[in-house]
Amino acid sequence: MFVEIITIGDELLIGQVVDTNSAWMGRELNKAGFEVIRVTSVRDREEEILEVVDSAMKRADIVLMTGGLGPTKDDITKYTLCKYFGTELVFSEMVFENIKRILANRITLNPLNQAQAMVPKDCTVINNPVGTASVSWFEKDNKVLVSMPGVPQEMKYSMSHEIIPRLSARFEMKAIVHKTYMVKNYPESALAIALTEWENQLPECIKLAYLPKSGIVRLRLTGRGDNEDQLKKMVLKEGSKLYEILGENVLDENDAPLEEIVGRMLKERGLTVSTAESCTGGNIAARITSVPGSSAYFKGSVVAYSNEVKKEILHVLDETLQKYGAVSEEVVKEMVLGVINSLKTDCAVAVSGITGPDGGTLDKPVGTVWVAAAYGKTILTAKQEVDFGRELNVERATNNALLLLQRLLK
Amino acid sequence: MFVEIITIGDELLIGQVVDTNSAWMGRELNKAGFEVIRVTSVRDREEEILEVVDSAMKRADIVLMTGGLGPTKDDITKYTLCKYFGTELVFSEMVFENIKRILANRITLNPLNQAQAMVPKDCTVINNPVGTASVSWFEKDNKVLVSMPGVPQEMKYSMSHEIIPRLSARFEMKAIVHKTYMVKNYPESALAIALTEWENQLPECIKLAYLPKSGIVRLRLTGRGDNEDQLKKMVLKEGSKLYEILGENVLDENDAPLEEIVGRMLKERGLTVSTAESCTGGNIAARITSVPGSSAYFKGSVVAYSNEVKKEILHVLDETLQKYGAVSEEVVKEMVLGVINSLKTDCAVAVSGITGPDGGTLDKPVGTVWVAAAYGKTILTAKQEVDFGRELNVERATNNALLLLQRLLK
Repeated sequence: MFVEIITIGDELLIGQVVDTNSAWMGRELNKAGFEVIRVTSVRDREEEILEVVDSAMKRADIVLMTGGLGPTKDDITKYTLCKYFGTELVFSEMVFENIKRILANRITLNPLNQAQAMVPKDCTVINNPVGTASVSWFEKDNKVLVSMPGVPQEMKYSMSHEIIPRLSARFEMKAIVHKTYMVKNYPESALAIALTEWENQLPECIKLAYLPKSGIVRLRLTGRGDNEDQLKKMVLKEGSKLYEILGENVLDENDAPLEEIVGRMLKERGLTVSTAESCTGGNIAARITSVPGSSAYFKGSVVAYSNEVKKEILHVLDETLQKYGAVSEEVVKEMVLGVINSLKTDCAVAVSGITGPDGGTLDKPVGTVWVAAAYGKTILTAKQEVDFGRELNVERATNNALLLLQRLLK
Repeated sequence: MFVEIITIGDELLIGQVVDTNSAWMGRELNKAGFEVIRVTSVRDREEEILEVVDSAMKRADIVLMTGGLGPTKDDITKYTLCKYFGTELVFSEMVFENIKRILANRITLNPLNQAQAMVPKDCTVINNPVGTASVSWFEKDNKVLVSMPGVPQEMKYSMSHEIIPRLSARFEMKAIVHKTYMVKNYPESALAIALTEWENQLPECIKLAYLPKSGIVRLRLTGRGDNEDQLKKMVLKEGSKLYEILGENVLDENDAPLEEIVGRMLKERGLTVSTAESCTGGNIAARITSVPGSSAYFKGSVVAYSNEVKKEILHVLDETLQKYGAVSEEVVKEMVLGVINSLKTDCAVAVSGITGPDGGTLDKPVGTVWVAAAYGKTILTAKQEVDFGRELNVERATNNALLLLQRLLK
């Protein structure tokens, strides 16, 4: 079953908003066995929306649209779909009740809110309990088009609770099995060389993709066929061969973020963790705590941007700072032990570096970052040296800190 | 000048990677006066790429493509473009030298790296000094198609240093002026009502867009025309009327992130700041330090996920925790004063809440978050009550903390 996604809104094309909806939708649809073949973002213009909808309906079995359902002038999706399907807007009591409930504690109802209760006549209207714009489900020539709000939490709610379950009931699908292996220490091309033989012997029904990101390559095996159990076995069998070829460099059999993998290791072993961060500025802690339930092993962090904080809260010695500078192996070692001491945790990671764009020296250019991880008295350190820009330098340092901790815990 | 963006890669459609490239490109192109009218993401399939390229070349003046230029089997963009433009691949000494330089310290050169030095014959090859895949610039029927790498830092480098300057030199464009106003305390529809009269009197050449995000609505005025200076004056004149209508709720005249606005205020007044975070887990600190130069005013943070850390590092009283619970106005007040004390800063923000999915009680359901900001002894607090999911709860708390601080500093 082929799906096309259409995201609508000038803000996407002018780049003021990143379209995170399609990736989320692609992921969830895939898990349910649907295949997204194209994503198109268009402006809030009637003729452009009509053209994109028409050609998507010709190629795909299912067209999912997000956006353009707000209460303001620039939101025209609803009107445009009425035109495309040759229908008109009618008042929906159900949608109006929902709007009143949603806005009850916030503002007085105005005519624009009421206009949101107008819905296309010839479609199935699906209530959206977490927002004021409703979902419209159209059918034509045995194909389905669904228009839903573009606000991510509303889209996610509608997809999970209504649209995917309804699509699964409506269509018959092939089984799909994914399995992702994370590989460290291999640039993409070197990995491809190492895996050539293995890749060539993969059965027809299994596809391989390389997904490199911040120093880690994810290898995704996708099996498609009729028998799910058999597919699973085949995919696992092929995947297990990776360990023979790559050994310890295969990090985990799940496509989980690093913070989740490390979190699981900490939880299983009943250990606690803290972070001492200079240039990552709290980013490692934010990543660790993005995992629900992380309070079971994460106690806290000290973000020590200034040297004063490094000295006073983390007890880094003034002498060490003077002698080696804040960005040094010696300082991150004292930081990591300092935070273990202050916050009384079993393990910790620490980072100090120059993420730029300013602050570099000849000796320590922008991009220089020292990372440490400690478990009890055992400390591992690593140094980053290439400048990828501030944001990416922070992301790589965060990943490297978590990778060091993962190595320590293994 | 109309631009279409085509992003290529199975990983985009299966949702394993979020396409952040197009938004960045849209933003930069817009600033330079180009208008992106469509973004299409397609799979690594020859026939699909050919179809998308062909129809984009019909609609737009410029087609910009990212992705599918890696060294592995699934990367077919280069071959497909040769087919489309009726040309062939030839060896480029310049590209090969660059590949050798890039990989010098990392891996031994292999055949796949060498294959990356093969480039389309009938195009201008632009060197990519930050990666191994080069940029190809094609011309046909007075239109331009550029194929560049999908790795964000490589795309950004090529766009900023080569592609946008070359496009600007190649085409003649209308002037474009953007101005964004951030409005707080107004849901989108209420704001639209308040602005109806003003919106209706806007001149033809000025367009308005509403961009709501996490409790703030950004109003973007876009002027298009021949005379840039005149456009600027017109846009500013219309914008200034917003202050008469909305008063203090207009936050800033720039489309800057909150952390940048607050950072600027702190810098101008020579004040320092710290954060004490429970449920935001370091996210406020990470946001503050995402701004280059933030070390001038940001000293550090204490992420106090556990009550122990709240007591020992932030000196929250055990009594207060017992009596009111960790998620309470009393506790965030003690946290914010505690971090000002410990880290010796002029101001601070503090957050404590239940972001979910678990941990809620009847009394304090998931989504309950207390936020505080202090400047010296003056403290402001606020409470969030609606659950938008873990990630968004954290984002809203971060915004609310920064908004409180902004109010204090004003």
